[in-house]
Amino acid sequence: MTTVTSSEFDRGIALAPDGSTGGHRGELGAGWQIGGGVNGGLLLAVAANAIRQELPEHPDPVSITGHYQATSHPGPVTARAEVIRRGRSLSTATATLSQPDEQGRPVEKLRVLASFTDLAGLAGEVRTSAQPPALPPREQCVGMEHAPRELIAQAALLERFELRLDPATVGWAVGAPSMNGRIQGWFRLADGREPDPLSLLLVADALPPVTYDLGLPGWAPTVELTVQLRAEPAPGWLRVSHATRNLAGGYFEEDCEIWDEAGRLVAQSRQLARVPRG
Amino acid sequence: MTTVTSSEFDRGIALAPDGSTGGHRGELGAGWQIGGGVNGGLLLAVAANAIRQELPEHPDPVSITGHYQATSHPGPVTARAEVIRRGRSLSTATATLSQPDEQGRPVEKLRVLASFTDLAGLAGEVRTSAQPPALPPREQCVGMEHAPRELIAQAALLERFELRLDPATVGWAVGAPSMNGRIQGWFRLADGREPDPLSLLLVADALPPVTYDLGLPGWAPTVELTVQLRAEPAPGWLRVSHATRNLAGGYFEEDCEIWDEAGRLVAQSRQLARVPRG
Repeated sequence: MTTVTSSEFDRGIALAPDGSTGGHRGELGAGWQIGGGVNGGLLLAVAANAIRQELPEHPDPVSITGHYQATSHPGPVTARAEVIRRGRSLSTATATLSQPDEQGRPVEKLRVLASFTDLAGLAGEVRTSAQPPALPPREQCVGMEHAPRELIAQAALLERFELRLDPATVGWAVGAPSMNGRIQGWFRLADGREPDPLSLLLVADALPPVTYDLGLPGWAPTVELTVQLRAEPAPGWLRVSHATRNLAGGYFEEDCEIWDEAGRLVAQSRQLARVPRG
Repeated sequence: MTTVTSSEFDRGIALAPDGSTGGHRGELGAGWQIGGGVNGGLLLAVAANAIRQELPEHPDPVSITGHYQATSHPGPVTARAEVIRRGRSLSTATATLSQPDEQGRPVEKLRVLASFTDLAGLAGEVRTSAQPPALPPREQCVGMEHAPRELIAQAALLERFELRLDPATVGWAVGAPSMNGRIQGWFRLADGREPDPLSLLLVADALPPVTYDLGLPGWAPTVELTVQLRAEPAPGWLRVSHATRNLAGGYFEEDCEIWDEAGRLVAQSRQLARVPRG
């Protein structure tokens, strides 16, 4: 069994109290880089972890939004969380991640606003008309060992994942994007760490940018990412789909759904990102 | 032509500098109530208007998120906006709306986090695979004069709108919800005020809760609402669709699309709301 301290993800989001500021200190690992910066989903999970420290009664984000202000780099990070309101079933909080510039002055990289709850305490009926992505069995899917070399070179991140993409959505890897604006596949963390609410924040931003499938390769910087967590994920593989339907004015939305092995839609997210310059 | 001062919406979101606090003062009008509170879309537009005062170079939200903490009531409101980062093409800001309690102490009602830009300055190609909702002509749609009396009684808001709903999505009004989780129709402001980026924030939360179409009438309090504005709307009628695909654990998501008369997808939004108690 994987314990908290032995998983790459848990080490990646770990925070320690920072006595001098009243905030938390962490370290962004080089292994979470993509396209020259640290992955936005990992950063959102770090910020959520800072909020969680302040909200033991409501440990899980039910809706969390991050606005990304500057590229984050491997190295020290400071997280500050502030609870805005403590409620009976929901609490609202904000958090910031900052990193020092070359002169040691703090630069804000991410601002987060979120409502937290206790997902394990949610009861009530489930009515889902949404359908999980139709994926071939994992052994018929494409591992990242087949990804374009320039993608892998820019994405140490991908080594943290076991990602098996639907062959119908990886034509871009051989110069033949489907132009449908969809990438989907099977996901789990490479070290076997099981999914939980915080790791789903990472998963929501884990696949290659969906613009690859529109024939627009390159890094697509996230402006804003909102993740809504709808249930605690069951252990096992996740099914993840990314889709876009509107690219305009230099921006596109990327809608993500995450389904767990029990067949539950456990997270829905949308990000607004900049179209890669190509 | 409708001028700023003559439209109900512009009066509804009007703010004046509050010398004593450095913030802004406004007045939430009784005409924007629904279900015992002031409409969440109107509140989001008030907060966006406060941010706009601080960002003349970036007057339009491109992505804006609000977390609703307590019911807002008609009467005085205080708005405070803070610019987090001024960028070349995007700026990030936060805002709060507060109202005094019975003892005159401020109670925070809404916290907002947003990225602003100048939508008129966005160029670049448009690739939209999304399709506008298929709506019958307006004369074949259903005006709110046919809405259930208990809905109208709780929604002074609806008098501010000219709303013509697709007959296929209003079965709930006669006790026969389609159970598809979709409500869609034509929208414009009743006084003829043309759409603009701030009024789209209202439109994103203007239709009756989509849970009506699931046979779950009643007020559905918004936990969080995110609106992404993708283009400046053309003058004229808007086509608006609300849909939900996952109701679970007492919450549901409501996805909204707004299309303008020129056929552009001008806004996409998602809110997380509580399932009505019924």
